[in-house]
Amino acid sequence: MKSTSDELKTKAQAAKAASRELARLSTEVKNRALVSIAEGLVAKEKQIIAANRRDMDEAKASGMDKAMLDRLMLNSERLKSMANDVRTVAALPDPVGETIEARTLPNGLRLERRRVPLGVIGVIFESRPNVTSDISALCLKSGNAVILRGGKEALHSNSALAKVIREAAAAGGVPIDAIQFIESTERQLVSEMLKMKQAIDLIIPRGGEKLVALVIENATMPVLASGAGICHMYIDPTADLKMATRIAYNAKVQRPTVCNALDCLLVHSDIANRCLPMIAKEWSKAKVEMHCDPRAMKILKGVNARRATAADWGREFLALVAAVKVVDSLDEAMEHIARYSSGHSEAIITEDYSAAKRFTDEVNSACVYVNASTRFTDGGQFGLGAEVGISTQKFHARGPMGLKELTTYKWVILGSGQVRP
Amino acid sequence: MKSTSDELKTKAQAAKAASRELARLSTEVKNRALVSIAEGLVAKEKQIIAANRRDMDEAKASGMDKAMLDRLMLNSERLKSMANDVRTVAALPDPVGETIEARTLPNGLRLERRRVPLGVIGVIFESRPNVTSDISALCLKSGNAVILRGGKEALHSNSALAKVIREAAAAGGVPIDAIQFIESTERQLVSEMLKMKQAIDLIIPRGGEKLVALVIENATMPVLASGAGICHMYIDPTADLKMATRIAYNAKVQRPTVCNALDCLLVHSDIANRCLPMIAKEWSKAKVEMHCDPRAMKILKGVNARRATAADWGREFLALVAAVKVVDSLDEAMEHIARYSSGHSEAIITEDYSAAKRFTDEVNSACVYVNASTRFTDGGQFGLGAEVGISTQKFHARGPMGLKELTTYKWVILGSGQVRP
Repeated sequence: MKSTSDELKTKAQAAKAASRELARLSTEVKNRALVSIAEGLVAKEKQIIAANRRDMDEAKASGMDKAMLDRLMLNSERLKSMANDVRTVAALPDPVGETIEARTLPNGLRLERRRVPLGVIGVIFESRPNVTSDISALCLKSGNAVILRGGKEALHSNSALAKVIREAAAAGGVPIDAIQFIESTERQLVSEMLKMKQAIDLIIPRGGEKLVALVIENATMPVLASGAGICHMYIDPTADLKMATRIAYNAKVQRPTVCNALDCLLVHSDIANRCLPMIAKEWSKAKVEMHCDPRAMKILKGVNARRATAADWGREFLALVAAVKVVDSLDEAMEHIARYSSGHSEAIITEDYSAAKRFTDEVNSACVYVNASTRFTDGGQFGLGAEVGISTQKFHARGPMGLKELTTYKWVILGSGQVRP
Repeated sequence: MKSTSDELKTKAQAAKAASRELARLSTEVKNRALVSIAEGLVAKEKQIIAANRRDMDEAKASGMDKAMLDRLMLNSERLKSMANDVRTVAALPDPVGETIEARTLPNGLRLERRRVPLGVIGVIFESRPNVTSDISALCLKSGNAVILRGGKEALHSNSALAKVIREAAAAGGVPIDAIQFIESTERQLVSEMLKMKQAIDLIIPRGGEKLVALVIENATMPVLASGAGICHMYIDPTADLKMATRIAYNAKVQRPTVCNALDCLLVHSDIANRCLPMIAKEWSKAKVEMHCDPRAMKILKGVNARRATAADWGREFLALVAAVKVVDSLDEAMEHIARYSSGHSEAIITEDYSAAKRFTDEVNSACVYVNASTRFTDGGQFGLGAEVGISTQKFHARGPMGLKELTTYKWVILGSGQVRP
């Protein structure tokens, strides 16, 4: 049997070779392969669910908690939903080959900046097996070969999914080696993958904070990572307080476990006495726990509030908890955001034009909102179609990342014998 | 006296604080500061040249070679040229604040993708003191604070230049801390800088291969590096051979010491007997040495040719030397390029439409040419104005990098109370 290292090297080389062919495939062929994958996921339901059962049995035996078990579990309905997601990717415009800009230079050279795939994308992910189909579809559509390395606990599910996806893609006309799945679950392998900058053009970590940090710290190639969202909302004295309450409720309660949910509410002292009780009343219906600075605490005592600790500022709660602070000015609010934000999404609620302009000009996060909920930070909501994740990095991509963010460009220059004088 | 580490930390914090103010400055103020810098470089000529004399004396005493001494030397004329380069940057359009795209979403949210500075840029460079003014101007115009760390051999020159630049920038209305120069020349400091990903958003190495590799290997933040240019030119059987000869001469001879000069000539076997002697005749006028594969050697023996070694393929010569190989097809040429290219610039000379289309579609380098010299790969030639360097990376930027490549974007979303359903 081959060693772990051999498996990785062989598959990476195969992916690299396939990536050149994949980069040239027409949209038609890629879409046909995607539809074939979607059909395969449903047609091969039996095998996939049987493999998933093995993972589930092992996970239960090892004492995995309920939430994790639920994330691991596949059934007929979930496979249909995964197939639908693949069809959605098929329906998106193909970013490859787009002319980003083009012009004729004074010497007659015709200069074009053309969108092309990145090459080979490595994906390191945990538990949820749907990442296998999801990211394979996004890579395929953007013309990139992909090397998938999933978590140990989902090995049988991922392996079965990868087999179905590879065969279906090949049936649709895509080189089978364009999608690679690493069977070995040795830990050492992740470190090896992160060193393969000659073979892998980009690494995407999909999973918890620890995994993402490990990848960022050790990768020798660029990393496209979704960052934590420590989201702030500042309510200005001129705000429409009903609107502020509605938005605060939506941003905190509608889906508290995601990165674009509200974490910290900043309220101007001029309106805190009126505004905070309005919001606290709505929030308390959803049992939101408030961690308050001393001034907010004075206003909110008696409701579901307690004193904030230093750790509550700059904390991503991912739960029905919010930090609350009274500030004396827009500047103080923006200072707080600059200090504690993770650069994901921040909002101001105001009717003051100058405050809105200053906030959007000066707050340096991926997404800056006026009078809207931070929950809109999402590829689908922004009209990008499917999404690879939400970047809090500043390089290459910021905010929701769609298919375009899995591409780069090349310059194509057509001449008629020009030489440099 | 403060320790090295303290100097770096203090200056990085100051740069970070200044970067927020700098990001908001109007184009008018930034341009005024740039003009003030240009004037300062000429007005303070005496101090700068005196400081440079100290570096030159030390360098001569330490036995530095002539070419290096010439790169280190500053005089009145060179300072004027540096001042002119700064004025050129002042005249370029400001990338900051540009709306990259904008649209209204179905729910009425107004979505804008707006260009913003990256923040703080660290620059690690060697010998040439003109990098100090050059890169300071590019960073200032793109709204980024900069931390400069030059080579030991140019310490006095760089320090004098930085002093003039900082004071002139401040006189023009830019926060003085937006431009930082590290006085300490301890080696340890580079490693420390590369770990400061909280304070420094991007690192630019400017210098030799070793410096660039060290930075790429050890930086914890993104790196914007200029890569080696191993440039290929393939002459197709249908090529206009006079044009091919003219372009081969220009690409190899016009400036052989730069990255976009030709390194490897690939000629189709159908025309090699006619084409190679034509090119060899022109090249021999400039004393170009040819390192030939066996088939090219057969045709070229007697002229300035010798057998190529394995090391000649995929080698950047930076001199009047070229590798020469006869191939039997476009596919063989493209295979050779895929294997040996550094992804910088490649050209095909052809009158065959299909060959030109395949070459531009399939060769995956930053710049792909038809019937033109690779020497055009240059920010100025591409109409980008000044240039930070030429990227052979695939992430963020490819090919010539201008002011835009020193920026990122943020999403600005203007609403009227929208919440997520």
